[in-house]
Amino acid sequence: MPLWLIFHPAGIFEDSASKQALAEDITKMYTGLGLPAFYVVAKFIKLPAEDIWVGGKQKTDMPFIRVVIKHIAIHVPDDDALYRRTTSRIDRILKPHIADKGYDWEFHVEETERKLWNGMIPPPHKSEEERVWVKENRAVPYEGAF
Amino acid sequence: MPLWLIFHPAGIFEDSASKQALAEDITKMYTGLGLPAFYVVAKFIKLPAEDIWVGGKQKTDMPFIRVVIKHIAIHVPDDDALYRRTTSRIDRILKPHIADKGYDWEFHVEETERKLWNGMIPPPHKSEEERVWVKENRAVPYEGAF
Amino acid sequence: MPLWLIFHPAGIFEDSASKQALAEDITKMYTGLGLPAFYVVAKFIKLPAEDIWVGGKQKTDMPFIRVVIKHIAIHVPDDDALYRRTTSRIDRILKPHIADKGYDWEFHVEETERKLWNGMIPPPHKSEEERVWVKENRAVPYEGAF
Repeated sequence: MPLWLIFHPAGIFEDSASKQALAEDITKMYTGLGLPAFYVVAKFIKLPAEDIWVGGKQKTDMPFIRVVIKHIAIHVPDDDALYRRTTSRIDRILKPHIADKGYDWEFHVEETERKLWNGMIPPPHKSEEERVWVKENRAVPYEGAF
Repeated sequence: MPLWLIFHPAGIFEDSASKQALAEDITKMYTGLGLPAFYVVAKFIKLPAEDIWVGGKQKTDMPFIRVVIKHIAIHVPDDDALYRRTTSRIDRILKPHIADKGYDWEFHVEETERKLWNGMIPPPHKSEEERVWVKENRAVPYEGAF
Repeated sequence: MPLWLIFHPAGIFEDSASKQALAEDITKMYTGLGLPAFYVVAKFIKLPAEDIWVGGKQKTDMPFIRVVIKHIAIHVPDDDALYRRTTSRIDRILKPHIADKGYDWEFHVEETERKLWNGMIPPPHKSEEERVWVKENRAVPYEGAF
């Protein structure tokens, strides 16, 4: 359910290995919170560098990656410390794949209604049903899902 | 106004007929609710399968379609039964085009502020002005729109 | 931080000049509000016209541009007059680049949590720290950012 749309210029993330390394690190963030691995979708959306504009200027001095992250299953409680923990966690995930390579980046997280997801309501976070989804790594029908 | 971003791998939705069939079914969902047909925009965004990652793994065992749906004109009231009705309606729309073809999929719905749309405020749902928009199938200026 | 995703059909916005003109006008809207220029990211996402469907029909009678705008740093207060001012401002930005060229368009604005942005909390709007970000046109660490 977390969906990462990774908008990147052509010329980077061109090989499977670099994409896999990032996708695995993203997935670990969420499985570490107890969410099923299959929830985590990352899409690499390649754009020509000349179609990326920052501050009214074509972004050609260095690769610029803009990540749009959508959180559906669990949201950050309205608490500054927790917001900071979330964004610094994401920052650390991106660092070896982006900052350490000399690329520029920006990300933001959007939070959307968990009940407006697929044809069933996902099990409550930390519930027994969620643990089944983690174990089987797929959406398993349960009472209350429909 | 409902906007469907249909991220799909290359190799499916390559012909107009399959896209039209889905776009028509999507449109019917909203015109059935009384919304104008022109509100309904569907974009098919084709990605190489190797750029789609689920649970940290490249999704190559079967086509995986990720649909991002944005609702602007009308939102689902905060009621579990209505959430379920909405997602099961969408599930039924996708079924013949995706599940029945053996593809995998995921969707979620985002709800955004109806007053932050184009250069006019859309007419209230079920209003006389909305009926004019339905009939003419275009945005017709009305008192209160600007 | 405002992110503009400009979905457009092939055949328009093919040259840098037309993209630059729009990207500059978008940027001016936000710098005029006192935000740093580097906040403003515009991405042109080109799709084949046959992948764009409006009201269940392939949109081939004229170019149709669908703009998804994400506001993170500042949100519109819940006031009809201010909503109208925002959307009419955006309408005026798009006009010379889209309407005046005989193209069709639709836009909407999404507002997301400013604390879920990058690895630091952006400075409050109209603060001294924000003025530093404007002047240096980059994210400058400050007390309270982390």
